[in-house]
Amino acid sequence: MIAAFAPATVSNVAAGFDVLGFALDEPGDVVVARLADAPGVVISEIRGDGGRLSRDPAKNTAGAAARALLARLGTSQGIDLQVHKGLPLASGVGSSGASAVAAVVAVNELLGRPASLEQVCEAAMAGEMAGCGAVHPDNVAPSLYGGFVLARSIDPPDIVRLPVPAGLACAVLHPHQEVQTGAARALLGDAVPLATAVRQWANLGALVSALHSGDLDLLSRALVDHVAEPKRAGLVPGFALVKAAALTAGALGCSLSGSGPSIFALTRTLDAAHAVGQAMASAFGQASTVGADLWVSPVGRTGARVIDLAGIR
Amino acid sequence: MIAAFAPATVSNVAAGFDVLGFALDEPGDVVVARLADAPGVVISEIRGDGGRLSRDPAKNTAGAAARALLARLGTSQGIDLQVHKGLPLASGVGSSGASAVAAVVAVNELLGRPASLEQVCEAAMAGEMAGCGAVHPDNVAPSLYGGFVLARSIDPPDIVRLPVPAGLACAVLHPHQEVQTGAARALLGDAVPLATAVRQWANLGALVSALHSGDLDLLSRALVDHVAEPKRAGLVPGFALVKAAALTAGALGCSLSGSGPSIFALTRTLDAAHAVGQAMASAFGQASTVGADLWVSPVGRTGARVIDLAGIR
Repeated sequence: MIAAFAPATVSNVAAGFDVLGFALDEPGDVVVARLADAPGVVISEIRGDGGRLSRDPAKNTAGAAARALLARLGTSQGIDLQVHKGLPLASGVGSSGASAVAAVVAVNELLGRPASLEQVCEAAMAGEMAGCGAVHPDNVAPSLYGGFVLARSIDPPDIVRLPVPAGLACAVLHPHQEVQTGAARALLGDAVPLATAVRQWANLGALVSALHSGDLDLLSRALVDHVAEPKRAGLVPGFALVKAAALTAGALGCSLSGSGPSIFALTRTLDAAHAVGQAMASAFGQASTVGADLWVSPVGRTGARVIDLAGIR
Repeated sequence: MIAAFAPATVSNVAAGFDVLGFALDEPGDVVVARLADAPGVVISEIRGDGGRLSRDPAKNTAGAAARALLARLGTSQGIDLQVHKGLPLASGVGSSGASAVAAVVAVNELLGRPASLEQVCEAAMAGEMAGCGAVHPDNVAPSLYGGFVLARSIDPPDIVRLPVPAGLACAVLHPHQEVQTGAARALLGDAVPLATAVRQWANLGALVSALHSGDLDLLSRALVDHVAEPKRAGLVPGFALVKAAALTAGALGCSLSGSGPSIFALTRTLDAAHAVGQAMASAFGQASTVGADLWVSPVGRTGARVIDLAGIR
């Protein structure tokens, strides 16, 4: 039996709609894989999903990703999976992708690591596509590799790993509501004004440069989303107040994580992330009667990893 | 008397429409500045423009830029300018910006360098705006600073200088036709499909990362323009054949320079740029009866500079 952990991820990252993401250290999902006698993939157990996820491996991102990896390897080895959801569903922190990543990392380890990291990544993306009807490389890739990742292309996959400036940390506020990614996407429409698109790619280019150079002042100026946030902010009551509180408390930037409802803020240090997170939680508490989780973490450099089975509750 | 040279620039650079540019070493424009008794800016001579540029300093980018710098410095010092156009008009290599940059660099030097580089840059942009009705920071900034430059924002200016990978060189083919930037811009329309915009900023992010990391394979994959080139290529007869010839000859990428008609190709070495340039010129010669210039240069790291007056023909 092998257990693998895959962390939550923040995708879009303001200017990087659909192409940029980064990993947290925690929280995340755990998948336990073991060899089974019958060929194919079986999901014998899912915990932490409130019974909402399908146990059919074709309709579950963990199961579908494991199947994609086995197909890629050309093996008929049977695999049993247990999925321990540490991430809430439809929360905007890459929950479906993390399950897919944890599954393929666990299965690959169980089989003696026959697949390259690139093959593991492709299987996880194929699994997310099969299991939930859409692929989010800006969630899947950072959950696997850690750090910041730019998905230049999905087909064929062209994944660019970016440096993480020293100290960079993150606070994520997760309001207890759900946002369906498909509905959030429909809000965006099919076209963007050219002038808006130019501003967005100017900011993304600057953001990528800032990650390389470690210029956190530039990073802060570039953490602006002209495309998705203006149209989606209304999905998350209290967003504007939370963002204002984060910036006032010293965040480098603050925006929706993925399609929301989670809200992330980047900070220069982990201490600052704790302070900013408290300010965000306090502002949200005043603006909404809905509960919320607060996660504070360095930007996770490690990504998915095999873990000790004893660490699983 | 002080003379300053400002080099030609390639803007847009495939994925970086309106925000990314780089400098050549040569060719470029030269402006000679000297003190004059009467307050204000006078353009006493322009060479190399075929008599087409206005001598009215308010309607000439060199004159307007010099006026903007003097206004910024709060001086009523009189200045006389001679403009030596080394760059053809409406050619897509930043001709109007180069004159503005050369003028402000010469004037600033003449006055003992009272203005910072940032102030010089702002004056050059103001001059281009006043002199030709539009500002192209992705031409002006690389012509001044050298290397690759990303214009994150124009107002206020936020200019990000990017590293130049060792050896990177360029061939520019300049067909003897003119493309008016305004007409080329009108071809683009006001909106871009969201999916196209996402592909464009994915490529721009990868391109910026490749410049930092020196990954020229990634640079090559990222040198793709989904926004402007497909709509503008028809302005330049023979473009498709020239591009195909450049890529076959080993170019990392090839696209329109600015809004054309010039066509640029980036290469790993200066030798490769010579070979690619010859292939481009040969293909153009077979496709068109129009003449063309070929410029081959390293990516220019120096940008605008004060030069010896003896070097001016």
